[in-house]
Amino acid sequence: MKIDKNKIADHNGQFRESFDRDFGFVAENLSRKGIDVEKVVMKVSEFQVAVPSWALGAGGTRFGRFSYGGEPASLEQKLNDIGVLNDLTRTAGAVSLHIPWDTPKDVKAIKEVAASHGISFDAMNSNTFQDQPEAEKSYKFGSLNNTDPAIRDFAVQHNIDVINIGKELGSKSLTVWLADGASFPGQLNFQNALQNTQKSLQGIYKHLPDDWRIFIEYKPYEPNFYSTTIQDWGTSFMLANACGEKAYTLVDLGHHLPNTNIEQIVATLMLKGKLGGFHFNDSKYGDDDLTVGSIKPYALFLIFNELVYGMENNPQNPNLAWMIDASHNIKDPLEDLLQSLEAILIAYAQALLIDQKELREAQEQNDVVKCQEILQEAYRTDVRPILMAARKKAGAALHPITAYRDFQVRKSLIKERGTKNMATGL
Amino acid sequence: MKIDKNKIADHNGQFRESFDRDFGFVAENLSRKGIDVEKVVMKVSEFQVAVPSWALGAGGTRFGRFSYGGEPASLEQKLNDIGVLNDLTRTAGAVSLHIPWDTPKDVKAIKEVAASHGISFDAMNSNTFQDQPEAEKSYKFGSLNNTDPAIRDFAVQHNIDVINIGKELGSKSLTVWLADGASFPGQLNFQNALQNTQKSLQGIYKHLPDDWRIFIEYKPYEPNFYSTTIQDWGTSFMLANACGEKAYTLVDLGHHLPNTNIEQIVATLMLKGKLGGFHFNDSKYGDDDLTVGSIKPYALFLIFNELVYGMENNPQNPNLAWMIDASHNIKDPLEDLLQSLEAILIAYAQALLIDQKELREAQEQNDVVKCQEILQEAYRTDVRPILMAARKKAGAALHPITAYRDFQVRKSLIKERGTKNMATGL
Amino acid sequence: MKIDKNKIADHNGQFRESFDRDFGFVAENLSRKGIDVEKVVMKVSEFQVAVPSWALGAGGTRFGRFSYGGEPASLEQKLNDIGVLNDLTRTAGAVSLHIPWDTPKDVKAIKEVAASHGISFDAMNSNTFQDQPEAEKSYKFGSLNNTDPAIRDFAVQHNIDVINIGKELGSKSLTVWLADGASFPGQLNFQNALQNTQKSLQGIYKHLPDDWRIFIEYKPYEPNFYSTTIQDWGTSFMLANACGEKAYTLVDLGHHLPNTNIEQIVATLMLKGKLGGFHFNDSKYGDDDLTVGSIKPYALFLIFNELVYGMENNPQNPNLAWMIDASHNIKDPLEDLLQSLEAILIAYAQALLIDQKELREAQEQNDVVKCQEILQEAYRTDVRPILMAARKKAGAALHPITAYRDFQVRKSLIKERGTKNMATGL
Amino acid sequence: MKIDKNKIADHNGQFRESFDRDFGFVAENLSRKGIDVEKVVMKVSEFQVAVPSWALGAGGTRFGRFSYGGEPASLEQKLNDIGVLNDLTRTAGAVSLHIPWDTPKDVKAIKEVAASHGISFDAMNSNTFQDQPEAEKSYKFGSLNNTDPAIRDFAVQHNIDVINIGKELGSKSLTVWLADGASFPGQLNFQNALQNTQKSLQGIYKHLPDDWRIFIEYKPYEPNFYSTTIQDWGTSFMLANACGEKAYTLVDLGHHLPNTNIEQIVATLMLKGKLGGFHFNDSKYGDDDLTVGSIKPYALFLIFNELVYGMENNPQNPNLAWMIDASHNIKDPLEDLLQSLEAILIAYAQALLIDQKELREAQEQNDVVKCQEILQEAYRTDVRPILMAARKKAGAALHPITAYRDFQVRKSLIKERGTKNMATGL
Repeated sequence: MKIDKNKIADHNGQFRESFDRDFGFVAENLSRKGIDVEKVVMKVSEFQVAVPSWALGAGGTRFGRFSYGGEPASLEQKLNDIGVLNDLTRTAGAVSLHIPWDTPKDVKAIKEVAASHGISFDAMNSNTFQDQPEAEKSYKFGSLNNTDPAIRDFAVQHNIDVINIGKELGSKSLTVWLADGASFPGQLNFQNALQNTQKSLQGIYKHLPDDWRIFIEYKPYEPNFYSTTIQDWGTSFMLANACGEKAYTLVDLGHHLPNTNIEQIVATLMLKGKLGGFHFNDSKYGDDDLTVGSIKPYALFLIFNELVYGMENNPQNPNLAWMIDASHNIKDPLEDLLQSLEAILIAYAQALLIDQKELREAQEQNDVVKCQEILQEAYRTDVRPILMAARKKAGAALHPITAYRDFQVRKSLIKERGTKNMATGL
Repeated sequence: MKIDKNKIADHNGQFRESFDRDFGFVAENLSRKGIDVEKVVMKVSEFQVAVPSWALGAGGTRFGRFSYGGEPASLEQKLNDIGVLNDLTRTAGAVSLHIPWDTPKDVKAIKEVAASHGISFDAMNSNTFQDQPEAEKSYKFGSLNNTDPAIRDFAVQHNIDVINIGKELGSKSLTVWLADGASFPGQLNFQNALQNTQKSLQGIYKHLPDDWRIFIEYKPYEPNFYSTTIQDWGTSFMLANACGEKAYTLVDLGHHLPNTNIEQIVATLMLKGKLGGFHFNDSKYGDDDLTVGSIKPYALFLIFNELVYGMENNPQNPNLAWMIDASHNIKDPLEDLLQSLEAILIAYAQALLIDQKELREAQEQNDVVKCQEILQEAYRTDVRPILMAARKKAGAALHPITAYRDFQVRKSLIKERGTKNMATGL
Repeated sequence: MKIDKNKIADHNGQFRESFDRDFGFVAENLSRKGIDVEKVVMKVSEFQVAVPSWALGAGGTRFGRFSYGGEPASLEQKLNDIGVLNDLTRTAGAVSLHIPWDTPKDVKAIKEVAASHGISFDAMNSNTFQDQPEAEKSYKFGSLNNTDPAIRDFAVQHNIDVINIGKELGSKSLTVWLADGASFPGQLNFQNALQNTQKSLQGIYKHLPDDWRIFIEYKPYEPNFYSTTIQDWGTSFMLANACGEKAYTLVDLGHHLPNTNIEQIVATLMLKGKLGGFHFNDSKYGDDDLTVGSIKPYALFLIFNELVYGMENNPQNPNLAWMIDASHNIKDPLEDLLQSLEAILIAYAQALLIDQKELREAQEQNDVVKCQEILQEAYRTDVRPILMAARKKAGAALHPITAYRDFQVRKSLIKERGTKNMATGL
Repeated sequence: MKIDKNKIADHNGQFRESFDRDFGFVAENLSRKGIDVEKVVMKVSEFQVAVPSWALGAGGTRFGRFSYGGEPASLEQKLNDIGVLNDLTRTAGAVSLHIPWDTPKDVKAIKEVAASHGISFDAMNSNTFQDQPEAEKSYKFGSLNNTDPAIRDFAVQHNIDVINIGKELGSKSLTVWLADGASFPGQLNFQNALQNTQKSLQGIYKHLPDDWRIFIEYKPYEPNFYSTTIQDWGTSFMLANACGEKAYTLVDLGHHLPNTNIEQIVATLMLKGKLGGFHFNDSKYGDDDLTVGSIKPYALFLIFNELVYGMENNPQNPNLAWMIDASHNIKDPLEDLLQSLEAILIAYAQALLIDQKELREAQEQNDVVKCQEILQEAYRTDVRPILMAARKKAGAALHPITAYRDFQVRKSLIKERGTKNMATGL
């Protein structure tokens, strides 16, 4: 399924007047403040976020999983779903594959499907936190940190396999997330576990092509865990340094203890040139994997403030890999992703409005009230017309969710795929 | 010091054009959605928040307190400071007195000063968490929950004294916040402590005039505490019920464990007709008493969503007492309070924009995506022009902080009071 | 499989000397302090904890589930497993059934199996947090709190069905745990959700036999949730009061926000006569469902201090229903349960050693140092010989885990059941 | 005041019988398990913990400070108080001085007083988190991280001054704790603040004598803060690496977000040879500075497990500086410190009992049940007789708190110093 450009243009037509009025108002106001609105629109329109292949199906909790109709049953169908998102937004031009949930059977065919939707292959994701049916080795007691060298080798080899698949697809990076850790005090020798993890990561790193990067995730907890081997950014950063120049830390918004100041971690990593990528989601209590911006939009804005600052001021840090890493348990995943994309771009656009020169001056004068005013001025601005302008420019829908509903996409997908499909993934 | 109305009108003059444009835009957009903008402006202009008498001086942490110039050294000066806030905003028309920090020496004179600024006397606050010099009894091991009946009586009597002062001033309510609890396991018999607290509160309640209300705060922790006797809303609610109809629970935003869903507590208490008042502030980690809306503005909006809903739908709940309860350690307290007032009104105005009928329908259809859209639509709207319209209507400043700085209020206060004053309070 | 009494006696034989020495030492020391050791041993030996039927299989996380050999595939086999635990400890004389995971097909036969192991039927557990295959109604958007009255009725009826099964089995109570709540702000009208829940619980309550009790669990969060309808003890308590005398709050140790003072909640509920039951487990971060006492044994002791106090001083509170509610992901479930049982009894025995009279005096004198000494004196005592004495008295194993391993129980179970069985449950 | 050795010996006399019985029992049991009890006793008796000079006075909260009688009013009196602790325990043979609260006026005299009590000078503590009266520069907006280089220099110079005082006294290390950070988003440029801090620390480091070490504390929050510049171990570790070989991270138990796995941080830092020191205390919610072991004794034991492991296996890590960093608000500080010392030694002794060889084997076999049994076996052992044996060997009191009370030390101190003294410090 592809959404025709003309259909989108037609749909946009009905909002022309209100769009012109809204954008005109914002543009004029920002221009008065000396902001180059066209530049902001351009940056917003260039921003691309990868969609993970596992996010297209219904997610589940520990207790239940509630299917919905028209779920994608194959990688092709998942790419088609991302195609829909990209048609509507022109922001979702990449997929992040998870192996083995979405191992392509026919690489050439898959590449063609992706190309037909303008979708590139972002970071590859390995999986050493589940045992596959008939697997020779079990990760029950860890993968890269396992006490058994044969299991570590098995997990390293899986990552090498993932790199090889990625090379064929045109990906340029590997993301490693581990559920390695302990459920009980005493279970693990922390020092051995850390050293084993380091050796295993170095083993993977050796096979990383020169133009690739490896991203190391951290996470302090997961239900049932007393300890995770890569518990925080400090540990990930240490491991990345031990691997080499192509190894980076990846920040997932949900992977932090209560109240952690994540924006400060972002700033530190970019200063050190070691922030590789970003996984977006939101949460109230734990790693809830909720829609981006649905719970703490101001925190997201503060993080984007640091990201924008780093992108401007930290040439030592590479371009970042952006990905949504949410789970869709009770919403239509495509609508949920549209909401996430909107929230990401809003935070980004608002951060672009911050007057960095004025902020620096206020900081130097310790004018704390003014520092806050500057940030809030940007945050309180209704930037949605800027997003619309960016989408319009790119031929996407002014109002993606409305268009999605008006076009009855879900109904078509159900018609096409039925109601019994079940996507691979969590 | 009073800020002349004409001076404010003159200051507003320079923003006339931009205000007309901004408000015109918002008003037109909201009208198209069927919102009665004038009604929203009216509600915003009627909203009044009390300023506590201890918030006008420099606050302190456990480690340091950094004075600033022109601090108010007497209750009269504090009332003058609130007068400045009220002149600039017409939102701060009440003071909440803390006894004994701000016991009026000459009640009649104080009432006249307050009246001259249009300031009324909101809830009275007792203090049984500190020993006063030469006090007969010590609260070292608790006040209302103390094992010693003589100390409980002493603390009860203090609250009665506070009521009596309040009666003279025209206040109609008493807020009780306790630091009663234990630093160590075993120190307190929880059941006795709770029962003593209940008896003490009932002792105070007996002396409460018929047209008064008593507000019982709760708080789960404070540095150095292992347990607080009124640790949560459930305990406060139970105690309020044990006192009687005029007793209510008071919610302070900073008095919750990490991640608590405060908006749900608000909804529950209003349903039960037992939410008496609200203390505004914001926090990142603990009870940080930071400027309202400076850390989690969306959470504040969600709370106002419940408050607005309750004010519309819960006649069983009385009008609420609103107060800012923040500490001003590194900002000019008056500027800080202006920022807090702005954040409160923004959240309130945004909550007023929620289409309750549409929301109810979406909830009934379990259209979770739409529910979120409806809330975010309201939240993403830039309502600042509405606040300006409300202030303009009331004769206040369109841009209070700019006016405050342009009028060089702090400079005048320093000239008048010098740089060595130190306000009573924390 | 049943473990022969003589086999246990033989196994105990090898430890006779060390047991006599250890118990003799502890008994003498405690006697010197005026403690009636025999009474403590008696109380410990009488303490019975129910094992939930879902705890006998391998638990799972969101990511993986790792089977082990000899898992029980039927309710009969689960009862046999509990029988093993009870043979070894004489502490696990009850099962708590979960419906529909463990609906008995032949009630009479099941009762006979249970009786043959000396196992009684403790609280029944309903399940309205998962959709059963081919279910007429879905709990995707809630059960007892659903906006749709037909779904609420469906969920109420399920609870009534569970009561009816329980009546046949001889159970006397129903535990209700809900995953009702919202993933996103705006999704639920909190007040309607609470009122619907109350009405549904009252609907269930109407069908509760006179000699039954209903236990209402609370829980503030679960991965993927922004709000749970029964978020805390205050809400559960309010609902229990709205149902009537036979309704109680149930405390599960893992169902609290970080740092909650659970022992104080226990004390409050017992004072009010509304603590119905207790679910034991332990956790580091969230609701980890780890082995009891494996992370925070002192907190467990402090809770038992309140429980013991309440059992002595609060006749208004009924006998409590005790249950282990843990998940066994990487340990042999039977060994894990043996460790949990040991930890529970240790905390109980230590709490029984607290000199309540001395403690009360120290509390009244505010001798905080002494209060702490009294608690720590009890806690630091090595009470394991008391547990052994209690088990010896009851014909159980002095060293249950050693016996379990020496008897090669797991090996026998694998031989009997194979390695492919998979237990129903999470 | 000094406590005569004979007086202690006499006091011990009355417990001779019970001590012999208790120690005999433990020693025999441990010997059977192959543990060299004498070696454990020796290690325990050699363990020395520094007492900070500010811990001898009454601590305070944000709200109140409750004095007690006989507070030490001078550094000499504080050393005398530590002398009492050391007489009673022979474990408190060092003082950690805070400058400027306890700047010695007459170095030679102070050294003599210290020597007379057998007290050495442990790490020096600088203070750049408070403004001293008449100070030329203010730390209101930060010290080592300040945007103003003159203030940074001022703070660096203070640290150099502290080093110089320390050199005269015979100290060998400097501990730096900062309250540098921001109360509000936007206030600080995180990257500049971090770089300024690094430069300032390097400036201090340049003046560090060759045989000194510098310890860098981290802390994620403090009431009133939105961000602290050294928020976690990763940041401290990075800064220590940027300084050089003599720079280390210092762990304070209270300086962590809720649920942080501190023992894992300890293990990582020792593996990297960068753990410099340890501040002991306990807490329920935040940085409560409560008596060591009063809230989470098992967590303390798990930390000591890693410390003991590191001391045995990590020659790359230097000897650690141990200090109690608690606040004494409602207990007699000397009794409180005696309780802390006891709790530290209990955890240490228990950790020494862990059979490391058996543990390693169980870990390698992933026998998680056994790993837990090994740890719990050590933890559940009542090691108090071992502590008594260590104290007896050293000429200290078998029962320090009992002796302290029997000797009526507080009464003597009040007689000597009166009831109006107030110690410098928090």
